[in-house]
This record gives sequence, structure tokens and C-alpha cells, in this order.
Amino acid sequence: MKSKFIVIEGLEGAGKTTARDVVVNQLRNLGVEDIVFTREPGGTPLAEKLRDLFKRGVEDDKPTVKAEVLMLYAARVQLVETVILPALARGAWVVGDRHDLSSQAYQGGGRGIDAELMRSLRDTVLGDFRPDLTLYLDLPPEIGLQRASVRGELDRIEKEALPFFERTRERYLSLAAEDSRIKTIDASQTLEQVSASIEKTLSQWFKAQQQEGNQQ
Amino acid sequence: MKSKFIVIEGLEGAGKTTARDVVVNQLRNLGVEDIVFTREPGGTPLAEKLRDLFKRGVEDDKPTVKAEVLMLYAARVQLVETVILPALARGAWVVGDRHDLSSQAYQGGGRGIDAELMRSLRDTVLGDFRPDLTLYLDLPPEIGLQRASVRGELDRIEKEALPFFERTRERYLSLAAEDSRIKTIDASQTLEQVSASIEKTLSQWFKAQQQEGNQQ
Repeated sequence: MKSKFIVIEGLEGAGKTTARDVVVNQLRNLGVEDIVFTREPGGTPLAEKLRDLFKRGVEDDKPTVKAEVLMLYAARVQLVETVILPALARGAWVVGDRHDLSSQAYQGGGRGIDAELMRSLRDTVLGDFRPDLTLYLDLPPEIGLQRASVRGELDRIEKEALPFFERTRERYLSLAAEDSRIKTIDASQTLEQVSASIEKTLSQWFKAQQQEGNQQ
Repeated sequence: MKSKFIVIEGLEGAGKTTARDVVVNQLRNLGVEDIVFTREPGGTPLAEKLRDLFKRGVEDDKPTVKAEVLMLYAARVQLVETVILPALARGAWVVGDRHDLSSQAYQGGGRGIDAELMRSLRDTVLGDFRPDLTLYLDLPPEIGLQRASVRGELDRIEKEALPFFERTRERYLSLAAEDSRIKTIDASQTLEQVSASIEKTLSQWFKAQQQEGNQQ
């Protein structure tokens, strides 16, 4: 099977890190050995710097909405061109903590940036590059924020008001509904149930990929 | 007269700083008191950080061509939205060391980024916001680089090979030829001659603006 790019998406506190461990264990069980991890925004020294600027701003100078989106895409294209594409090319699988869907959901849905602008930026910057599989961990934002706040101080994004995260979640759900490569996982279940859902979804998807590969 | 945005453009070593002093002196003589200076990329704390990343990269992680353009536009939109537009709105004039024309010339011309991509980014990010007057200081790149290298260490951009700057200059000249708001100044003359050219150009433009203002 050709190497694949799998992305884990969801609101703060949705359990992305746990999900990643589940995915990686299962990939190893399925015989995938070379796995590269990415996180967005970030994942290269330059992109991590941009992540930092994006999250905290500089002094009192917070990025405007447009500056924020452009910084996110700068970080993303740096990661795609210098890490993800070379990894896939050498046969490694890539497991990503967030990718473009986050921008579509947070900036497009949460901040209400014009959908046409978001689409145009994505297509201009990324062309038709998309993850092969996205696992979207869905849960009500109030549950996620509660979990995230227990972990420590909330950053600029996490301090947004609840309606922001509700709009973000709605956009996640509507984008997942129209793209079969995005699978929605109910992340409000217990940890064991969420892990089981991920394993089941991934295993079905993997089988389908193998069959597709055999037919070609 | 409504406040204006005047930009000084040109290759490294073209004499932009001297030109700025000439412009500012003359504006003061013409009765303009409130003048805000900007430089690009940069001009806000966040944009200066982006300038730094753009010029130096992080460790060995140099921005890819697309990441570079997106960072430049992030810095530019931050400056336009938080500094330039508010200054113009309160009646101040803005004198800028570089603006969008630099991206069109350096990234579009020098690096050869697809002109359609450059145009699409500009229009997406800036809409129809443009400087009222741009003074483009034109000179052969070998002269400019010689002047710049005398001043100290060359940065990542200044270390580009001569053909890069030749392509950049060509793009500057062709964009200036098709836009009457861009005036080309022969910057290979002596300092006194360049200053006199700037004064003459600015004074003619100012008169035309006054007449236009009177007619409205």
C-alpha cells in the first residue's frame, strides 16, 4: 500500500493526543513501521515560531484575522513542502495533529472568515493536496474546554468564548458530512469507547485501502 | 487635501533612506505636519518578528517560496490594518519604505512565482488598497549591491545572485510602466541629482493632487 497521511482533528480537549497513540499502535500492528508525526500549526523550526506568534502575538500586537490566516498557511506550506511530502515520498506514513480542516473550522467557522477567501487560500497554497484520512473527534465544546482547562493555562485561542467553539464545531460537522475521507468519532464517550471507535474506523478504512490497492 | 500614502521602492542600495528624508522634508515644506513612517516587511511588533523570520529563517529551516510570500502578506496586512489605515483615517500622511510592489517585484519577478498567484494573493488580502504615489528608485543591481555591501553584512535576500536582482528590476520597470501612480527615478545619478529628481516629481504630483482636490 502506498504511504498515507492521516490527520486527527477536533476541538481543544477532544483527546487528540490519546487518539494519536491509538492510531499509531494500530498502524504498527498492521505492519506500518516508518511513521512521522506532525502537529499544526508547527512541525518545523520556522512553523513552530509562527505557531508561537500566532498563539501569543508579540507584546500587545495580536494578529488581525487576515494576518492570522496567512501565518497559519505559511506554517502549513512550510510543513507540507519540507516534511510531509518528503516523508510520504520515501514511503513513511504521516500522522498529523491537525491540518487544513482546523483552519476551515476555526478561522472559517469560528471567526467567520469568508468561506470563499478560505477556499481560495487553501487552493492557492495547497493545490489538491489533502489527507487520505481525517479522524474528527467530535464533542460539545463545554466538555472539551473543561478538560483543557484542567491541563493548565489556556492560550489566546482557548480563551475564546463558547459561541466561537460552537461555530467551530458546526463547521467541523458540516465539512465532515460532505467529505467521505473525514470520519467523525463521538469523543464524548468514555476513553475506552473512544479508543474502540477509532480502532474500528481505522481498521475498516485500512481494509478498504488494501482492497483498493489490490484492484489497481 | 486628504491624507496620502507615499511609498519608496527600489533594490538594495538604491538610496531609499535618503529618498525618504527628501520626501519628508518636502512634505513638511508643503505644510504636511503629521507623518507616520512605515517599513516593510515590518512596522509593527508582530510584523517585525515576521520580517526577522523571513530574512533569517530559523536554524536551518529557511522559508519555502510559498511560505515566504505568505509571511510577507501576513506582515503587510497586519501593518495596513493596525497602522496605515488608522493613520490615514486620523488625517496623518504615511511614508512607507517598501510596500506591495516589493513582493510583486522580488517574489513575482526575482523568484519567478506565478504572476496569477501573486495577483490573487494581493487582491484577496489587500482588496483595492494601493499607495497614492510610489517613487521607484531605479538603478542597475550591481551598483546597488556594491553600495549595500559597503554598509555591512548582506542578509539572506541580499545574498541572492545578480540575475535574481536583474529579474526583480525588470519586474519593477514593467509594473511602473503600466501604473501612472508609480514614478520611476533614475537612482544611478549623483545624490544631488537623485534628490532633485525626487523633489521635482513630488512637487508636480502634489500640485496635481491639489488641483484634483479643488475640482471635487
